[in-house]
Amino acid sequence: MPTPPSSATVVEVFDTTLRDGMQVEGVSATVDDKLRIAEQLDRLGVHYIEGGWPGANPKDVEFFARAATELRLDASALVAFGSTRRPRGRVDDDATLRNLIEAGTGTVCIVAKSWDYQVTEALQTTLDEGEAMIADSVAFLAGAGRRVMVDMEHFFDGFKRNPEFSLRALEAAVVRGASHVVLCDTNGGSLPHEVEAIVAAVVAHVGGDVVVGIHCHDDTGCAVANSIAAVRAGGRHVQGTLNGLGERTGNCNLTTVIPNLELKLGMRCLPEGRLERLTAVSHHVAEVLNRPLNPQAPYVGSSAFAHKAGLHVSAIARAKDAYEHVDPATVGNGTRFVVSEMAGRATIQMKAAELGLAMDGPAVNQVIDDLKRLEHEGFHFEAADASLELLMRRAAGFEQPFFRVESMRVITDETATGEFTTEATVKVWVGDQRFVRTREGNGPVNAIDSALRATVRSAYPQLDRIHLTDYKVRILDGSTATGAVTRVLINATNGERDWTTIGVSPNIIEASWRALEESLVYGLLHTAN
Amino acid sequence: MPTPPSSATVVEVFDTTLRDGMQVEGVSATVDDKLRIAEQLDRLGVHYIEGGWPGANPKDVEFFARAATELRLDASALVAFGSTRRPRGRVDDDATLRNLIEAGTGTVCIVAKSWDYQVTEALQTTLDEGEAMIADSVAFLAGAGRRVMVDMEHFFDGFKRNPEFSLRALEAAVVRGASHVVLCDTNGGSLPHEVEAIVAAVVAHVGGDVVVGIHCHDDTGCAVANSIAAVRAGGRHVQGTLNGLGERTGNCNLTTVIPNLELKLGMRCLPEGRLERLTAVSHHVAEVLNRPLNPQAPYVGSSAFAHKAGLHVSAIARAKDAYEHVDPATVGNGTRFVVSEMAGRATIQMKAAELGLAMDGPAVNQVIDDLKRLEHEGFHFEAADASLELLMRRAAGFEQPFFRVESMRVITDETATGEFTTEATVKVWVGDQRFVRTREGNGPVNAIDSALRATVRSAYPQLDRIHLTDYKVRILDGSTATGAVTRVLINATNGERDWTTIGVSPNIIEASWRALEESLVYGLLHTAN
Repeated sequence: MPTPPSSATVVEVFDTTLRDGMQVEGVSATVDDKLRIAEQLDRLGVHYIEGGWPGANPKDVEFFARAATELRLDASALVAFGSTRRPRGRVDDDATLRNLIEAGTGTVCIVAKSWDYQVTEALQTTLDEGEAMIADSVAFLAGAGRRVMVDMEHFFDGFKRNPEFSLRALEAAVVRGASHVVLCDTNGGSLPHEVEAIVAAVVAHVGGDVVVGIHCHDDTGCAVANSIAAVRAGGRHVQGTLNGLGERTGNCNLTTVIPNLELKLGMRCLPEGRLERLTAVSHHVAEVLNRPLNPQAPYVGSSAFAHKAGLHVSAIARAKDAYEHVDPATVGNGTRFVVSEMAGRATIQMKAAELGLAMDGPAVNQVIDDLKRLEHEGFHFEAADASLELLMRRAAGFEQPFFRVESMRVITDETATGEFTTEATVKVWVGDQRFVRTREGNGPVNAIDSALRATVRSAYPQLDRIHLTDYKVRILDGSTATGAVTRVLINATNGERDWTTIGVSPNIIEASWRALEESLVYGLLHTAN
Repeated sequence: MPTPPSSATVVEVFDTTLRDGMQVEGVSATVDDKLRIAEQLDRLGVHYIEGGWPGANPKDVEFFARAATELRLDASALVAFGSTRRPRGRVDDDATLRNLIEAGTGTVCIVAKSWDYQVTEALQTTLDEGEAMIADSVAFLAGAGRRVMVDMEHFFDGFKRNPEFSLRALEAAVVRGASHVVLCDTNGGSLPHEVEAIVAAVVAHVGGDVVVGIHCHDDTGCAVANSIAAVRAGGRHVQGTLNGLGERTGNCNLTTVIPNLELKLGMRCLPEGRLERLTAVSHHVAEVLNRPLNPQAPYVGSSAFAHKAGLHVSAIARAKDAYEHVDPATVGNGTRFVVSEMAGRATIQMKAAELGLAMDGPAVNQVIDDLKRLEHEGFHFEAADASLELLMRRAAGFEQPFFRVESMRVITDETATGEFTTEATVKVWVGDQRFVRTREGNGPVNAIDSALRATVRSAYPQLDRIHLTDYKVRILDGSTATGAVTRVLINATNGERDWTTIGVSPNIIEASWRALEESLVYGLLHTAN
């Protein structure tokens, strides 16, 4: 599936991650974070980066000041956001408009009320004054040499109830020199067929004089589809955010709508060759905001091109393009095969090849049998790549040569003062040497980890580079409460490679211990001295 | 916005959470989990619950066996899934078809190849044989008295390339007695305008004889929009999963498409009065699978009706329906204002009244301060009603009179044979009597529960009616691995009342012990001798 030719219809991408995206619950970006995200957006090559609302908060003022000196944007233009002048106010002493000019960007975007109800109820003013606020503000900003975009707030709700006023608001912007009118589904309640019909009506009305844009929220789960419907109806400017960040259910997700427009509709959104940066930019921004990317995100998620069902994997190997809607490489992602109890022979063989393991037929059968039995007991190997590898190696004859555990004991005490202490004692053989070590910890897993490492460290100094990074517990089948089966997952790293191991047992200590032991074995297997 | 009248057009909801949904990466449900999810689906009132693929793995065989005796479905019909017979095979000795019959459901759903390429390449057979596989299998199952639905795999990809074969495949199912043909966008690559055109063509072709259904995946972020497009084109059966679970990017999310169809298009999907259970069912299923619900999920997410921007909150108070696309109550969700300490006071006072606690101003302030501090440490009282009540009682001067713990100790040993044993010793005062008891358990929590009960049982025989029903562990802030903070939730019951307590500590044993102690105190407080 080729990317669109340079003669393709251009749909402008307007990113509002740094303004509307920051309304998402649980995110608070620093000015540094915002500058780094802007660099990523420029790397991707969006047309416009909305940086914030100068004057609304000190952070956004600082952002524009630093952006002017620190950012070297190559593909993207920075945009300052604001609103029309106050009701019954004057443009030349309006703080919002003055801040917009002072932000120093060539393009500004202002929000305007286009639903009659919002003018009379929220602004408590007349419709004539509502129209004048738009006309005056656009004329003022255009007169100051700015390219002016107008976000028509609540446009679809307004148009459905009083199209005459919504179009008047729109015309006020157009005749005073706005370059873009952007139709906003502010409450996010619209469906694609409604958006398509209304955008078509607007394009017919003002299309020749101005670029018509679309700004959607995902409250019906249709923000991407609504944006595409708008483009099909003649819209040529799409607003959205990376990873769908935004208030409530989020804004239109640019990491989904851009590849849809380029790969499915043959339109051009990014400069040639940039689409393949999409996955990396999406993950980078998630990282900057410390907000894990949804693995199921279309195109860019880690599961977006992952295949699980045993039935499919063998077929995919024969005909990849019959099972993937686009080539993952076009968006910088890749195909991934996931192993689980549903795995067939082909999956195991492909995984063995990936690991460089020579496995004969009986060994493959052994793996399939082991997987079925253990997954029935509560293991879950798809989430534990390292335990899967060790299981496959064992089926092929491997025995771990590093150490042998004789016994372990862990004691937790609550003293009379209510303090808790935990200590673990581990007895281990390394070759023909026996080590007995006791270590304290802030909990049983921490204590047994410390004690086990203490026994084997002298023989394997590379252990110091192996660190546990996460520990997860899931109780399976809660119906028997503390008698239930416990599943423990442990993540570890040696700085170059990350891995996950699993342990399952009715006893949470045993489950943790099994996962820990495998984690160290895997680490020793893959970490040079 | 009213729910649709009972005369509205019915769109059947076919839930495949338990089959296709289980393909999602990172989820592995037990048979118990699946039974509990089926109960929730029935509570919601979907038409069909696809339970699994009997024969594909032992879990699904066990599920159908247990479902037949343990599930009492009120609104929903259980469906077994399978495929057409093998190429060049016979229906009467086909293991897949036999397993389908043996599952004992009144309705079955089989997957069939409707893309010519898949027949010739994946199945390596002729198009005539591909057609015969469908015809024979449908006839066989219909002949055995089953209602037969046929999932037409890769239908949209096939129809775009060779509509003639796709329609032949469809006709083969219809003429042999299929009640439903379900058009599957298996690779998930379609957009709404394509789906609408193709479904309209199919409905025109076979519409009178059969129900046309739709089955979408979210690879373009349009699964919900595609399903709605299909309904607008005449489809009357929508397949999907709760919370959009499913392979790669997930299946069509029923928690989004159902309210869209009911509240936006005026169609009827669920029995009268059931839509308001949507949020609770969505959260319950997320909990069963220990897979946190996306807070941004449309309609049911905790952020779906959350308002953050200061500007909006005052406006929303004046005109709620101008800022929310539907009334959150229609789907069992609610408006939430983020950062609101005023709401805190009101809630505490309402809760105190509910408990019959006399709380003066300083006591209420104490509770608010305690909540803030403890929630910052990782407590989460919304999920632990009993711990909240005890915290409020303590703020009002309560001290538990039942027992006083002097100390506890728990020891876990791995012996030389690899067996694990755990024993706990608890020293407790009841009045002026001191009890020391040691008990074994299959894990540390089980052992300390047994030992604590042994110390206090003689004084409080009603303890025998108090049982733990669930135990959950979550590791908070995994960045320090086994040094992270652990949150334990314990559910208990006395047969009349259920309650939940919480414990938080870096030490999982301490966190469990705190939750356990509070659980028994709350139980003794509310269980008559």
